[in-house]
Amino acid sequence: MNKVCEILNIQYPIIQGGMVWTSGAKLAAAVSSNGGLGVIGAGSMSMDILREQILKAKTLTDKPFAVNFPLLYSRVDEQIEIALELGVDIFITSAGSPKKFTQALKAKGKKVLHVVSSPLLAKKCEDAGVDIVIAEGFEAGGHNGRDEITTLCLIPQTVDTVSIPVIAAGGIADSRGIKAVMALGAMGAQLGTRFLMTKESSAHPKYKELLTHANFDSTKLSIKKHVPVRLFKNKFYEQVKELEDRGADVSELSELLGRGRAKKGMFDGELDDGELEVGQICSLVKTIPSVEEVMEELISAFE
Amino acid sequence: MNKVCEILNIQYPIIQGGMVWTSGAKLAAAVSSNGGLGVIGAGSMSMDILREQILKAKTLTDKPFAVNFPLLYSRVDEQIEIALELGVDIFITSAGSPKKFTQALKAKGKKVLHVVSSPLLAKKCEDAGVDIVIAEGFEAGGHNGRDEITTLCLIPQTVDTVSIPVIAAGGIADSRGIKAVMALGAMGAQLGTRFLMTKESSAHPKYKELLTHANFDSTKLSIKKHVPVRLFKNKFYEQVKELEDRGADVSELSELLGRGRAKKGMFDGELDDGELEVGQICSLVKTIPSVEEVMEELISAFE
Repeated sequence: MNKVCEILNIQYPIIQGGMVWTSGAKLAAAVSSNGGLGVIGAGSMSMDILREQILKAKTLTDKPFAVNFPLLYSRVDEQIEIALELGVDIFITSAGSPKKFTQALKAKGKKVLHVVSSPLLAKKCEDAGVDIVIAEGFEAGGHNGRDEITTLCLIPQTVDTVSIPVIAAGGIADSRGIKAVMALGAMGAQLGTRFLMTKESSAHPKYKELLTHANFDSTKLSIKKHVPVRLFKNKFYEQVKELEDRGADVSELSELLGRGRAKKGMFDGELDDGELEVGQICSLVKTIPSVEEVMEELISAFE
Repeated sequence: MNKVCEILNIQYPIIQGGMVWTSGAKLAAAVSSNGGLGVIGAGSMSMDILREQILKAKTLTDKPFAVNFPLLYSRVDEQIEIALELGVDIFITSAGSPKKFTQALKAKGKKVLHVVSSPLLAKKCEDAGVDIVIAEGFEAGGHNGRDEITTLCLIPQTVDTVSIPVIAAGGIADSRGIKAVMALGAMGAQLGTRFLMTKESSAHPKYKELLTHANFDSTKLSIKKHVPVRLFKNKFYEQVKELEDRGADVSELSELLGRGRAKKGMFDGELDDGELEVGQICSLVKTIPSVEEVMEELISAFE
C-alpha cells in the first residue's frame, strides 16, 4: 500500500491544495469523500469562520480531511488551537519553520505535513519530525519559494535528500501530471488549481469563468521583493509589473498590494482590481466539473 | 517503434542538447554512437570550426548526428550551407522563426526539429512543416523563453496542441526525468546539462568541476529585458543581478554582457568573469562520467 495513503488513512495519494478564499468545507469534504485528502485553507479565515468550516466539513464527510495553516498569519496559534479542539487529525503547515508546531502536534498524535520549496527545507522538516513533505515547485499558484525551483527539478532532489514520503505540488492538473511526478519518486500529488476549478470550490463564479479562457502565459511569479506570488495577469498584475520593471522597493509594492486584495479578486469576483492567485497549469484546465468527475480522471493515473 | 526513433533513425529517443562552447564533434559522436542523437552546437562556431567539427564527427561515428543552429546568429545562412554541403541530415533550429529554413531543408529531404518554449510556437512549427518540436521549459540552461513555462506545464499543453512528436527539454538529467516527461506525452527527451557534465564535452574542466558542487539554487533566469538566459550564480551573475534589481534597461545590460562572455566562462574556464550557462537541474548532476555511462543510466528508462 502507498505509504502516504497509510499515514493519512486515505484511498488515493491525491491532496487538494489548501488555498485562500477558495477552499472551504464544501470542497474539502467532496475531495475526502471521493478518496483523496480534502484541505480547508485556514489562511484567509477568521476564527469564527474556521470553526464553522471545520464543523461543516465534519457533517459533510466521515472521511479524514486536513486544515492548511500558513504560519506567517499572526493568529495562527489560535487557529491551530481551534483545529485541535474540534478534533482535526491532519495538519498542513506552510510559509514558516516546521519547528514551530510539529513536536507539539506529534505529541498529541496528529499527522503533520509541511510545504517546502527546496530540498534543504525538506531536510529541516524531516529533522523536525514532519510525517510527509509537500514539495511545491515554481509553477504553483499563490505564494511561492524565492529559489524558483520547478517541480521537475525539485522532486528528484527532495526524494534523494529525505527518507520521509514526498508529495509533489505545482504544475499538476491531470492524471498525466500525477504519473509524471510519481515517476520522479513522489508518493503522491497535491493539486490546487484543478480543484479551484470545480463546482464545489468557493472561488467566485466570475473568476472560474475567467480561468476557462486562460492562456499558457496567463500567470507570472510576481512581487518577488516582498513575498513571491504567482498571479493571473489582470489589471492589478499590470500595476505590479509596472512597479517591478522600474525597480520599485518593498514598501511601494506593499502599498500597492494593500489589504484584502486576494478576497476582492478571488472571492468577491472583482476581476480587474483584485489579486488573482492561480497556478501556471491553469491553461490546461478548461472546465468546471464536480470534484467527483475530477477525481475519476485523476485516479486513472493509478490504474 | 517510437516515432522519434523512426524519423531520426536512432535507437533511443534521447537527444543531446546543442550547447554553445561545450558540444563539439567529440560529444555529439559519442552520444550518437551510444544510440542517442548527438548534436553539434553551431551557435558558437566560426565557419571554419563548424566545417572542421562536422567532418570530425563523421570520422568518429557512422550513426546520424544533428547540428543545432540558433537563428539569431547573423551568419546562420552560411552555417546551414556548410552543413548541407557536408551531408548533414538532421537540422535543429532555435531562437527564431520555424518558417525561415524549414521548407528549403525539407525540399532537400532533410529532417527539421525546432526548439519552442510555448504551445503556440509549437503550432507554428507544425504549420511550417517541422518534423519534431523540442519543447523546452523554464528550467533549461542558456537562452530561454520569455513566458517562463515550466517543462511540467509545457509538455501536456504542447502534446494537446500539435500532432507531430514532441521532445521534452529542460530539467531532465536522469532516467526518472525521462520517464516523467514520457508520462506527460513526450516522445523523447533532450538533455543539455547532463551531457555537458561528461568527459567528452568541451566545457572547461574547471567549469565541470565547479558544477559538481552546484546547489539547488545555483542558477537563475536572468537578463530578461535583453534575451533571457539561465546563468550559474558567479561573480558575473552578481553584477547582472545588481543591474536588474535597480531596473536597468537593455542598453546597460548589453554593455555589461559585452562580447565573448560565454566563451570566457564555459570554454576558457574564467569562472568569475565569464558567463556560465547551465540548467537548473545541474545540482542533480554530481559526476563527470563518460557518455557511455550516462547513456546506460538514461536508457534504463525504457526497460
